Amino acid sequence: MSVLVVGSVAMDSVETPFGKADDVLGGSATFFSASASHLTDVQVVGVVGSDYPMDKLRELEKRNVDLGGIEQVDGSSFRWRGRYRHDLNSAETLETHLGVFSHFEPKIPARFAKPDFLFLANIDPRLQLAVLKQVERPKLVASDTMNFWIESRRPELVELLGHVDLITLNDSEARQLTEQSNLVQAARWIMAHGPKHVIIKKGEHGAFLFRDNNIFFAPAYPLESVFDPTGAGDSFAGGFIGYLARTGDLSEANMRRAVIYGSAMGSFAVEKFSIERLMTVTRPEIDERVHAFKQLVAFEEDLDA
Amino acid sequence: MSVLVVGSVAMDSVETPFGKADDVLGGSATFFSASASHLTDVQVVGVVGSDYPMDKLRELEKRNVDLGGIEQVDGSSFRWRGRYRHDLNSAETLETHLGVFSHFEPKIPARFAKPDFLFLANIDPRLQLAVLKQVERPKLVASDTMNFWIESRRPELVELLGHVDLITLNDSEARQLTEQSNLVQAARWIMAHGPKHVIIKKGEHGAFLFRDNNIFFAPAYPLESVFDPTGAGDSFAGGFIGYLARTGDLSEANMRRAVIYGSAMGSFAVEKFSIERLMTVTRPEIDERVHAFKQLVAFEEDLDA
Repeated sequence: MSVLVVGSVAMDSVETPFGKADDVLGGSATFFSASASHLTDVQVVGVVGSDYPMDKLRELEKRNVDLGGIEQVDGSSFRWRGRYRHDLNSAETLETHLGVFSHFEPKIPARFAKPDFLFLANIDPRLQLAVLKQVERPKLVASDTMNFWIESRRPELVELLGHVDLITLNDSEARQLTEQSNLVQAARWIMAHGPKHVIIKKGEHGAFLFRDNNIFFAPAYPLESVFDPTGAGDSFAGGFIGYLARTGDLSEANMRRAVIYGSAMGSFAVEKFSIERLMTVTRPEIDERVHAFKQLVAFEEDLDA
Repeated sequence: MSVLVVGSVAMDSVETPFGKADDVLGGSATFFSASASHLTDVQVVGVVGSDYPMDKLRELEKRNVDLGGIEQVDGSSFRWRGRYRHDLNSAETLETHLGVFSHFEPKIPARFAKPDFLFLANIDPRLQLAVLKQVERPKLVASDTMNFWIESRRPELVELLGHVDLITLNDSEARQLTEQSNLVQAARWIMAHGPKHVIIKKGEHGAFLFRDNNIFFAPAYPLESVFDPTGAGDSFAGGFIGYLARTGDLSEANMRRAVIYGSAMGSFAVEKFSIERLMTVTRPEIDERVHAFKQLVAFEEDLDA
């Protein structure tokens, strides 16, 4: 089944303790697509400026990513410049230049209007709501958000919750949105406002999937070297939704597996700058890492102890 | 098999967002014993002052905890006063009064001198080394430590590493001791200095067990309300070592199960002040929580996807 993603397509300049990269491919839709395309076909809607290196982005087309929803308009592209220090869990934003992204009004091409799965990446909740009006109800709608929208667009974000099946957000955002310090209570608050599923991402500390009264936890893979954490969350979402779309199965058991595929893709994303590692990773490597996750948490209960 | 623990026996005064408790039972050996005694016999070596509420501590004797190694001497007991704010992961120490603990010189009674398992709780590494000279080599020696000793007794702590089979420490302590920001590399550094096993505790984010090239991860149990985090680490150690002593099995599979028993006991400890919950929890409740941990991380690989 196909996945439609609507989000940012940006140029990132990143500095980590291990090196720096300038004007490399970035943005939520870019990471999502590079990740999900290992598992299913992806359609992308976004906007870039006249300065965007479309030839580099088009590498994604070799992997069944349809860039037909990317508008290139006059002006400069969305640029983000950030730095990670030794605590790789939090980025320090040095510069954000929205450029043409500040006037982004997602237009869903007719051939994208019946997606099986839809991922509303981190953009203004008003735009996320506008996208929903342009598509036939997909099998699953998932959305992401961030602290900026929680502060500036709370009513619209709460309205959006009533229209999505799943939301992904990180632990501090979950606490901020719900005003609950306990994550189980935060997830319950969110589910009471609409989504049947909540994924709370804790960066290097893993991710929770909440669904009804069930909780699933997946650790982050303990890599020996994390090179650049940028895009880990969107790569996670790409692996997660990509696996669901590949299998078309929304059972609890399959959702759990999908979280592990998401975690695996996130773990590859951070091994290099930008989408570099996502462009070279192979399906056997992905399956091997999924298996490594199984080994990481496996234990047998002892019923006689 | 029996477990000997050498550590602090203190009185804690704790304030959390949910209430406060004054002069309640605390200390590493106290939490460890209350936890481990659900699984095996425990022998305790420690020191208290003339003001210690021994009648309350003696409640532990009903559960096969032998307090014969606790010396009561003239002077005041070790007292700790601390506060947790909404971030329950870190305590703010308001007052530490070492009292008779500052002159603690562990003396192992003759009948404790052949322990099957030994836990050197968080005390001066010089004292931990002195304990090792007073006992026949146990089946497994585990030790804990803290930032204060890493700073003030580094050579003795590194010497100790050469004599223990396992060390438990939290993530910031592991980074501080090894000067490695990556936890996998930190664990490798520690194993190169002696211990065959390293447990890195991440509080509400779970715990890693490193052994040879294997890594096992156990999440912390996602409780809806954490009441008082004091003693979680020592309760974890008690469940972990207690389960190993109960089963006498040091295989990788059993060590993994032991980490889950440790995590389960840690999750009960934080449900109430002091050792209150550890005193009332039942074996069926413990087994039920172990099962809940299994549910929390369980997923099946899909070999056809």
